[in-house]
Amino acid sequence: MKIHHVGVAVEDLEAAIELYTNNFGAELTHRASNEKDGLTAAFLRAGEAEVELMQPLREDTPVGKFLANRGPGLHHIAIAVNDIHQAIAEARANGLEMIDQEPRIGLHGTRIAFVHPKSVGGVLTEFVET
Amino acid sequence: MKIHHVGVAVEDLEAAIELYTNNFGAELTHRASNEKDGLTAAFLRAGEAEVELMQPLREDTPVGKFLANRGPGLHHIAIAVNDIHQAIAEARANGLEMIDQEPRIGLHGTRIAFVHPKSVGGVLTEFVET
Repeated sequence: MKIHHVGVAVEDLEAAIELYTNNFGAELTHRASNEKDGLTAAFLRAGEAEVELMQPLREDTPVGKFLANRGPGLHHIAIAVNDIHQAIAEARANGLEMIDQEPRIGLHGTRIAFVHPKSVGGVLTEFVET
Repeated sequence: MKIHHVGVAVEDLEAAIELYTNNFGAELTHRASNEKDGLTAAFLRAGEAEVELMQPLREDTPVGKFLANRGPGLHHIAIAVNDIHQAIAEARANGLEMIDQEPRIGLHGTRIAFVHPKSVGGVLTEFVET
């Protein structure tokens, strides 16, 4: 098991980037947006892993609803996997509920799939193929 | 900036260890308890970082209250620092509110200090001296 990144829901992406770079010496590696998911994101290098800061573009989006319900803060954890199809198949065989039955393309341009938090003790968990 | 570990609040430590080892190939590295903080924890290797699973020993503890208020799930992120006193001093100089004004000994036996989540966009953030 290897942590690929930790996702954080933020209200103001630019302020959050400044917070992490100014206070914790984080290095901004790339930015990406996803119109379909309605979010804009920035990735900060954090050793082998990254911190993904995510700001919703609209209220009626997964991250927008998260912010409305829980406020800003830790949102998900992403695990690096070698083969996303195998990871999904194994998770389902183990009885985990997948949010994504089929992989989709994430903000890194690689294939991802989310596991439902109710199967992982309340932790929204993402597989990222690397 | 380097992620040292990600802390997860759990209701049942043994079930959570099984979940992560059986489903995600995580490796249990060590266990520790802190009577004062009223928690028992297990650390799982996750690449360069770790996942810390924390179960409260009593309801009237920080993690017990977190579980009661928010349910199980992501609890905090820990950043590795070289010098905990310097990290605390810099954070305070930058206007961040520290929960711990002075370092204390964490479950790894090294010095730690927590930054208040209200200073870090809702993310409870720990410094761990390594």
